[in-house]
Amino acid sequence: VKGCRSGRRRFLKNSATLAGLAAGAVLSANGQPLDSQMHAGPPIGDLRAYGRRSRFVTSARGPLPYAQYTPLGDSMGTITPNSLFHVNGTGGFHSHSPGEVYGGGLPDFDPRQHRLLIHGMVDHPLIFTMDELMRFPSVSRFHFIECSGGQGGTQYAPIRRLNFLNDTNMYNHPHVLYSKSSNAEWTGALLSVLLNEVRVQKGASWLVAEGAEPNRLTRSIPLEKAMDDCLVAYGQNGEPIRPEQGYPLRLVVPGWEGDTNIKWLRRIKVVDEPYMTMAETNIYPSIRPDGKARWFLFEMPPHSVITFPSVGQRLPVHGFYEIRGLAWSGGGAIRRVEVSSDGGRTYKDAELQEPILRMAHTRFRLPWVWDGAEAVIQSRCTDEKGQVQPSLAELSKAWGVSLDYWQETSNYINHFNPIHPWKVTREGSVQNALFA
Amino acid sequence: VKGCRSGRRRFLKNSATLAGLAAGAVLSANGQPLDSQMHAGPPIGDLRAYGRRSRFVTSARGPLPYAQYTPLGDSMGTITPNSLFHVNGTGGFHSHSPGEVYGGGLPDFDPRQHRLLIHGMVDHPLIFTMDELMRFPSVSRFHFIECSGGQGGTQYAPIRRLNFLNDTNMYNHPHVLYSKSSNAEWTGALLSVLLNEVRVQKGASWLVAEGAEPNRLTRSIPLEKAMDDCLVAYGQNGEPIRPEQGYPLRLVVPGWEGDTNIKWLRRIKVVDEPYMTMAETNIYPSIRPDGKARWFLFEMPPHSVITFPSVGQRLPVHGFYEIRGLAWSGGGAIRRVEVSSDGGRTYKDAELQEPILRMAHTRFRLPWVWDGAEAVIQSRCTDEKGQVQPSLAELSKAWGVSLDYWQETSNYINHFNPIHPWKVTREGSVQNALFA
Repeated sequence: VKGCRSGRRRFLKNSATLAGLAAGAVLSANGQPLDSQMHAGPPIGDLRAYGRRSRFVTSARGPLPYAQYTPLGDSMGTITPNSLFHVNGTGGFHSHSPGEVYGGGLPDFDPRQHRLLIHGMVDHPLIFTMDELMRFPSVSRFHFIECSGGQGGTQYAPIRRLNFLNDTNMYNHPHVLYSKSSNAEWTGALLSVLLNEVRVQKGASWLVAEGAEPNRLTRSIPLEKAMDDCLVAYGQNGEPIRPEQGYPLRLVVPGWEGDTNIKWLRRIKVVDEPYMTMAETNIYPSIRPDGKARWFLFEMPPHSVITFPSVGQRLPVHGFYEIRGLAWSGGGAIRRVEVSSDGGRTYKDAELQEPILRMAHTRFRLPWVWDGAEAVIQSRCTDEKGQVQPSLAELSKAWGVSLDYWQETSNYINHFNPIHPWKVTREGSVQNALFA
Repeated sequence: VKGCRSGRRRFLKNSATLAGLAAGAVLSANGQPLDSQMHAGPPIGDLRAYGRRSRFVTSARGPLPYAQYTPLGDSMGTITPNSLFHVNGTGGFHSHSPGEVYGGGLPDFDPRQHRLLIHGMVDHPLIFTMDELMRFPSVSRFHFIECSGGQGGTQYAPIRRLNFLNDTNMYNHPHVLYSKSSNAEWTGALLSVLLNEVRVQKGASWLVAEGAEPNRLTRSIPLEKAMDDCLVAYGQNGEPIRPEQGYPLRLVVPGWEGDTNIKWLRRIKVVDEPYMTMAETNIYPSIRPDGKARWFLFEMPPHSVITFPSVGQRLPVHGFYEIRGLAWSGGGAIRRVEVSSDGGRTYKDAELQEPILRMAHTRFRLPWVWDGAEAVIQSRCTDEKGQVQPSLAELSKAWGVSLDYWQETSNYINHFNPIHPWKVTREGSVQNALFA
């Protein structure tokens, strides 16, 4: 191309942040820049009705075949595509289950036959069809849903044998960062509106929500939360909720443990005490070394992770990069994200992408020049309550355990939100450094 | 279910807005509410990697086989799913083309081979690979992209024969409201950052952007807009842009005519005048009856439409409904949406869903009790500039034409943003009343 300096590239002398991008350009510009090859895509007929992604895009949930987590290392912006929204669990005992217990397929309920019953300590128990629920006043809100953890020795043994680190909310596959937190725009009726419709009786203080899947996952939720911001949701990112997210109806409990967001919601019973369900007593309590357990700790703590550069990615050249990541908290809006490139000795404030929404993934970014030396990069977020994401050492101290505990325990570890350090090697590869 | 009054339903006496929902519940509650039938979904293997929607969800772009518009009548919230994002055009001459000219498939460019050239009146013309572009500082922003119109007698004749109304931005299929406006979270580099990198020369005032598809759609864009808020985007709703939206690279020109958002972006030339390209001189000017034309009218005007109830939908019973719709404007944020249920004689302010973002779809909602009489419902929006969406009569007056003009002309009609009235019949069916 005439006039194009394809072999040389300007350094922005007075913008140190962009220095080094030049090197990449020199390497790749080849003088034939506009002869990009066009491939014929799928037949038009397939594309018209409901589009598909490029054959060159292969991002997938994983790590297969044991789990279906969001490939956060591939993420862009704040939305998690519905097709990549995480599905949790392998045991089939709770609503995160991908469905092995269902005889070869995920449950796919006929919306014309699905019903929601609200009963218990109410004056007027009611049964709602989907059409009726969709006539109620609706709201749309961006919220993350994050699994509270739930990693144990039993059901995750195969994963541990595959050399995954015991990092309950981020599975560090050698090739991609997987996450048990995803983010979507949910649309539905406010649960408070439905509860007002059935008239909750005096003395009621909890509700029990139940899914329609064969396992009937059931969780107790304080009435106060239900009246505050819970949604009975039928929409996810502009279309009906996906089957593995609870189609046609899911309870969305903003900022709280993922499995309180009951999928395939069919029943809400208003009661005056928590029901001590199996999930609450056997599965989700975190048992400490002294035998005590944390129960009913609903709200997810502040959590952040650098998505680029992250495990499995590679920095091809020295120079400018933008460190990118996501932060979220059950405590509300993210107020601050700090990023360190020296293993936590010093931090700089990252820029937060607006709009910054409560209990939603928030994108953060910070310019960084990699000089080619080994570096440990990590992020630390603070939410609107002032809660700060802890280091693993701080978390261990608060938990009263040794650092080894996290790798050795076979108990469930919930709300595991340590700062996630990634080591950038001299070769530019990125590795997990949590237990380094 | 014991204790459930399935045959009676409470009226909320002191909440007139919800009155009538009761009727629906009475009709449908059948005493067997919890026996919803579960269907086995697709095999788990298919779902793990990249999820699919329920077999019961069939929302599709259309109307087929002539166009691929977003089924806005099915929309929930503000996000348009990538699979339902509109693709415009049938002639194959511009970048909206669904691809008939490409020999049976949409273009699907290999990102490893794709390049962007920025040259012309710049000190340092540069060629960027996709990897390099993705290293630049990035932003994520929610924006609609709306076709400016472009309906003419020639290429849309088949559609007109199929009894579509000449309503250029909303195709009123008998069964669903289709729209040429869709909304997504776009992620990419700011064009201003890239332009700073090549150093734009004094005297430059425009740029020409070109796509890599065989047609090479080319549009002239003022430099001022390019430096303000344009994105060189690679991400859409959390994943790479879809092939029919320009994978791997699309220019996003917030709020401006859809076809300025060049797909498969491969070249930006900085110049000192508009280039009077075919799209600008032959295709997109709006020719008036007096022979004069409007050229280079980039910014899309304020536009809103009621998505529920809308054409093809049906109100099963009298009583409470929530009127829902979407509003947007190239002029910035939506400040107000008014809704009328008496054909425009009186209006009430609708509630706007937050966050209200600039040049983005904004969801509005208003409670409404349908008494069973014929009603004409419509919405009217106002943007942050104070621009008000006109009635068809007001638009005609401003345009200097008769009402018939819109139905009879074979010229291109751009920026056609009249208030869209829907008639609700006594039977509860919803019809287009724009030309009633």
